[in-house]
Amino acid sequence: MKIAVAKEIDPSEPRVAASPDTVKKFKALGAEVAVEPGAGIKSGLPDSEFTAAGATVSADALKDADIIIKVKRPEGAELAQYKRGALVIAIMDPYGNDAALKAMADAGISSFAMELMPRITRAQVMDVLSSQANLAGYRAVIEGAEAFGRAFPMMMTAAGTVPAAKVFVMGVGVAGLQAIATARRLGAVVTATDVRPATKEQVESLGAKFLAVEDEEFKNAQTAGGYAKEMSREYQAKQAALTAEHIKKQDIVITTALIPGRPAPKLVSADMVRSMKPGSVLVDLAVERGGNVEGAKPGEVVDVDGIKIVGYTNVAGRVAASASSLYARNLFSFIETMVDKKEKKLAVNWDDELVKATALTKDGAVIHPNFQPKSS
Amino acid sequence: MKIAVAKEIDPSEPRVAASPDTVKKFKALGAEVAVEPGAGIKSGLPDSEFTAAGATVSADALKDADIIIKVKRPEGAELAQYKRGALVIAIMDPYGNDAALKAMADAGISSFAMELMPRITRAQVMDVLSSQANLAGYRAVIEGAEAFGRAFPMMMTAAGTVPAAKVFVMGVGVAGLQAIATARRLGAVVTATDVRPATKEQVESLGAKFLAVEDEEFKNAQTAGGYAKEMSREYQAKQAALTAEHIKKQDIVITTALIPGRPAPKLVSADMVRSMKPGSVLVDLAVERGGNVEGAKPGEVVDVDGIKIVGYTNVAGRVAASASSLYARNLFSFIETMVDKKEKKLAVNWDDELVKATALTKDGAVIHPNFQPKSS
Repeated sequence: MKIAVAKEIDPSEPRVAASPDTVKKFKALGAEVAVEPGAGIKSGLPDSEFTAAGATVSADALKDADIIIKVKRPEGAELAQYKRGALVIAIMDPYGNDAALKAMADAGISSFAMELMPRITRAQVMDVLSSQANLAGYRAVIEGAEAFGRAFPMMMTAAGTVPAAKVFVMGVGVAGLQAIATARRLGAVVTATDVRPATKEQVESLGAKFLAVEDEEFKNAQTAGGYAKEMSREYQAKQAALTAEHIKKQDIVITTALIPGRPAPKLVSADMVRSMKPGSVLVDLAVERGGNVEGAKPGEVVDVDGIKIVGYTNVAGRVAASASSLYARNLFSFIETMVDKKEKKLAVNWDDELVKATALTKDGAVIHPNFQPKSS
Repeated sequence: MKIAVAKEIDPSEPRVAASPDTVKKFKALGAEVAVEPGAGIKSGLPDSEFTAAGATVSADALKDADIIIKVKRPEGAELAQYKRGALVIAIMDPYGNDAALKAMADAGISSFAMELMPRITRAQVMDVLSSQANLAGYRAVIEGAEAFGRAFPMMMTAAGTVPAAKVFVMGVGVAGLQAIATARRLGAVVTATDVRPATKEQVESLGAKFLAVEDEEFKNAQTAGGYAKEMSREYQAKQAALTAEHIKKQDIVITTALIPGRPAPKLVSADMVRSMKPGSVLVDLAVERGGNVEGAKPGEVVDVDGIKIVGYTNVAGRVAASASSLYARNLFSFIETMVDKKEKKLAVNWDDELVKATALTKDGAVIHPNFQPKSS
């Protein structure tokens, strides 16, 4: 059983799919681990660290590998290097990428999309969306602080008081919660909102204030609990007016709203951006999916009359060392379920719900029900 | 009494010497306030904010002004615009700049160096070194977090634990203390050191650990208290060995050691830099004075085998809005002492110890005892 750790070919991808820690664990499972030279360098992991953990580092690491682990979906030239039948596991970004899925099928690989892991207890340790969103939420606050011309904490000095920064987090998933926690750590006054009234309690447990029109409808939705119940049109209009008024007074707005497989919802209009004070900052974590903020551009910091819209892509990758470390552990936990520990051999159970939920291609075909080629 | 707020001509200087708040206060003293167009823009203060506070904004703001307030020492072309006899107050950087001092004398202005303000209780509200160092210490941590590929706080996630970052602060003055506080806020494990054993208590009161060889000599020096007592050569060697060993294990090193009027002490050698792990970050707040870290370059982020040395200059200026706000209040507090509040007129008392300590030039001559032209 040979596991290969690929070097990412996308220059904007600094993460790597293994760590010295997971290399040791793979070895303990009976695997041989080969790493492409320089694979970890942008995550602060020189080849020597992989070697010290028991991996071999060589240019033909991918050759004859039974499992290839990556961060991003392999592209044409990469696929040609893989053995037919190899398992290739990565963040596959499958939505709307039918041609890329077909290419993987044609290459004869068994490909798995980590981001399709079901959100069940057993798979929590493999949940790459959570592990990366958590770091993106932390990093969004650091980017906000970097772009902001004021200090975050209130400072009582001999010359007077510097007020605490006002931070507003829109979208309270994993990223939003970590953004709230980090902004609070740095001393900001934090508010947050989400379409799910049930998140109010989580926001408040982190010491932030929940922003919502708290009428009867809200209270009923809140006790009903659970996932985004559609609110009435009338409620949405009231909430939008409240939000617009609130944004005017904020120093930093961090948006994190994503809908799987669909464009990100527009939360902040150009008018709302311009209503903010000069020097204010918006950080749009959804920019790769079209953005929550009107005017946000992927990979850029846009200046609108002195208000900055930070649109960095791959924000988790901007804390690459931590992101790689957690991603590597997500991968290990999944691969561990595919190994017969007694025989120390690969033994994929194609009926396992984790495998069924994530497997995109196998034996030359796209097998995932959500991504079947449309009959024409 | 006309007070002019100059726009800085140095493009790397984003701060401004007044805020809407201090404009109002100057008006209350009976002054007329004129601001050069765009003076506050890089501090998030459009002209309209100054106008709203009661200032006039115009291109000839400096004309006939009795007091000109600036951030940086005026250069040749600027001096020509000032009325002879005008008071010009700024951060003058007087050490080793004899020609610039002579130019100010020749222009006939009365110039005052804010950074020479005596460190007495009455002048605390005017202490620009403290107000700016405080913000630089905060910002040093933000720069460190931005350059660092890991998260600062310990994170307990389903995929495992991300360890807390280890931050080491060298030099525990105002900047060092704020760096300690900020790194602690962000969840780092913080250690600090200083040549003054008396700072141990301050470091510990912020929840950080003091790094020192705590032998008899140290304990005696500590109880003796006060300012940098020279330690024995033997002690210094032991302390240096301990520090070198400590730095190897750190993720972030922030250096803040300055000696007024002299080059910054070298605290971290190139060997010590290279002893750190790839991905580690050093932030050198003393880089403008030659640097505490070997290899640091002003205005640059130097990469040494994957270890970054951050050498931004004017770090307080990187939180320009807060820095301007505090600096403006420092200036106001000083100018307030030069005004006869009953007559609402300028009335400088040249015998006041604050004036004597800060006045560099007057009536065509350099008058400060520390900067007398050397007889040749």
